[in-house]
Amino acid sequence: MNPFTRIPAASIASLGERRVIAAIRGWLGPASPRSPFGLGDDCAVVPQSKGLQLVTVDPVIYGQHFDDDVSPAAAGAKLFKRNLSDIAAMGGIPRVAVVALAIDPSVSIRWLELFYRGIARVSRTYGVPIVGGDLAQISGGIAATLTLLGAASPRNQRILTRSGARAGDWICVTGSLGGSRRSHHWRFTPRLQEGEWLAGRPEVVAMMDVSDGLAKDLCLLTPPGAIARINPREIPLSRAACLASRSSGRSPMAHALGDGEDYELAFVIRNTTDFPAFSAAWKRKFPRVCLSQIGRFFKRSLVSSVPADWIDAESYGGFEHLKPVLRDRQRRP
Amino acid sequence: MNPFTRIPAASIASLGERRVIAAIRGWLGPASPRSPFGLGDDCAVVPQSKGLQLVTVDPVIYGQHFDDDVSPAAAGAKLFKRNLSDIAAMGGIPRVAVVALAIDPSVSIRWLELFYRGIARVSRTYGVPIVGGDLAQISGGIAATLTLLGAASPRNQRILTRSGARAGDWICVTGSLGGSRRSHHWRFTPRLQEGEWLAGRPEVVAMMDVSDGLAKDLCLLTPPGAIARINPREIPLSRAACLASRSSGRSPMAHALGDGEDYELAFVIRNTTDFPAFSAAWKRKFPRVCLSQIGRFFKRSLVSSVPADWIDAESYGGFEHLKPVLRDRQRRP
Repeated sequence: MNPFTRIPAASIASLGERRVIAAIRGWLGPASPRSPFGLGDDCAVVPQSKGLQLVTVDPVIYGQHFDDDVSPAAAGAKLFKRNLSDIAAMGGIPRVAVVALAIDPSVSIRWLELFYRGIARVSRTYGVPIVGGDLAQISGGIAATLTLLGAASPRNQRILTRSGARAGDWICVTGSLGGSRRSHHWRFTPRLQEGEWLAGRPEVVAMMDVSDGLAKDLCLLTPPGAIARINPREIPLSRAACLASRSSGRSPMAHALGDGEDYELAFVIRNTTDFPAFSAAWKRKFPRVCLSQIGRFFKRSLVSSVPADWIDAESYGGFEHLKPVLRDRQRRP
Repeated sequence: MNPFTRIPAASIASLGERRVIAAIRGWLGPASPRSPFGLGDDCAVVPQSKGLQLVTVDPVIYGQHFDDDVSPAAAGAKLFKRNLSDIAAMGGIPRVAVVALAIDPSVSIRWLELFYRGIARVSRTYGVPIVGGDLAQISGGIAATLTLLGAASPRNQRILTRSGARAGDWICVTGSLGGSRRSHHWRFTPRLQEGEWLAGRPEVVAMMDVSDGLAKDLCLLTPPGAIARINPREIPLSRAACLASRSSGRSPMAHALGDGEDYELAFVIRNTTDFPAFSAAWKRKFPRVCLSQIGRFFKRSLVSSVPADWIDAESYGGFEHLKPVLRDRQRRP
């Protein structure tokens, strides 16, 4: 759906700021608590939880993260779920969110309504209220930024970061990888329960979500002096990766390692882990989400010990930001 | 300073995402703690404080909040201080911030460096670290969004909201008003200490910061069934309001009530307050910041009791968002 309208009465400019904010509150409905615990004051007031707090911020931008082919509700939902996936990646639980919207005055009221209804739906599903926000003007575009606060799980108060791996440790991944750009990146489920469970397992020592592609993201889990090597037979290729391969001419493996936006969890388990027992515990807890032990970290000096058919994921690249924008995909009003 | 460059090697695109993020960490310096308590993981980890927490989010957008006439450091500082002013407006203390930047790849490295150095300077001044952020691409513009977390003052654990006024209560304002657009809105000092002190005074029952102009902002403090009336002789006209009046042909009062971006505190004290004693306590604490008792809330049914020469601030308007953007001020790369 194209976000812009040439009909003045259908544009948010026709409402003006106050009525747009009032409308947003209506669209959010119970997803937005009453002021001062929700929209409507200089700050939102949030009762503290115990222990460590988590903060993450991610945007969706018209022409970059979504375009006219995407439903506004899906764009709003994605904005929320990208951030939920970051909380999942630390093993945390999400608590409250604020949304800052920068928007052209010619955006249609209908587009904005569907966008916020998409946000409200995710808010209800995960029990995370929208407690505040901001509305500002930008020329010719839409940039929505969601900041999500979370906390360590009250069960174990443990947070998993990206650093914690050592040479010898094993690399695992949830779900399947690749071809996300066909549709998965609109439909994915943030691995919140899985992340919380993994943070409660002492053998798991590092974790992140796969957003820019495993090839690129793995570097961020790799400890100093080590290299990550992948057993290609263990990479969980998604059906979408195989479908994408037919039209792209690239291998399904290239899609699985390089596409990004999988929003699966990549995590590291200690060398000493009894993997069959760990995997069995996972299957009892998450029978519908597959778990793969895909590779291992090796000391750089022991590169000769890497099995001959294992691969260097980095050679498959990954999503690079700050490339020139595809301007022809941006339809301006 | 124009943010964009035609020289490829001077643009952030020439660095690519990873090196831009590394550069940002360098520019922030000690303003950015080490991961996971700063940039570099899926979320930032923030130790909890006691009591109520505050969250606010505000952006600065190229062509809307700043343009080529503004130094990048001033734009970065304003981004931070706008949010600090929101925390001040609740009587809270600021704790940590995250910055999400959406930026065209043709922005110059030099511009971005100065922008982040402006942020880092405010961070040091107020002791508020930048614990996380995001870098995304947007076509032809710059939109920076800062989310600031704060807390109720540990001294009194009291938060002041916009609601709390009753008919009969008095309206006060700190500092002086008007003409901010000439320069004050780049140079203002968020009233953090003043806000915290006011939240500790039981006679103060509601507060906000003056960002869109007192005329517009006062409505948000006005209790249901009441009207706000202003004693024009008590409005603290700034020197800038008088200067602006000479060139605009509008009265200094119109500037004081309508310009906005004063970032002063407007607050409400109970009807029963001994104002001379309150004012004397203020002067001992803040000898260099003036305090004015500018008006009062009246029951709508008792409008006849309003002194004849008092005015309705609302008639002076205030800054309205979502007006068509001044496109000619946006110089695209």
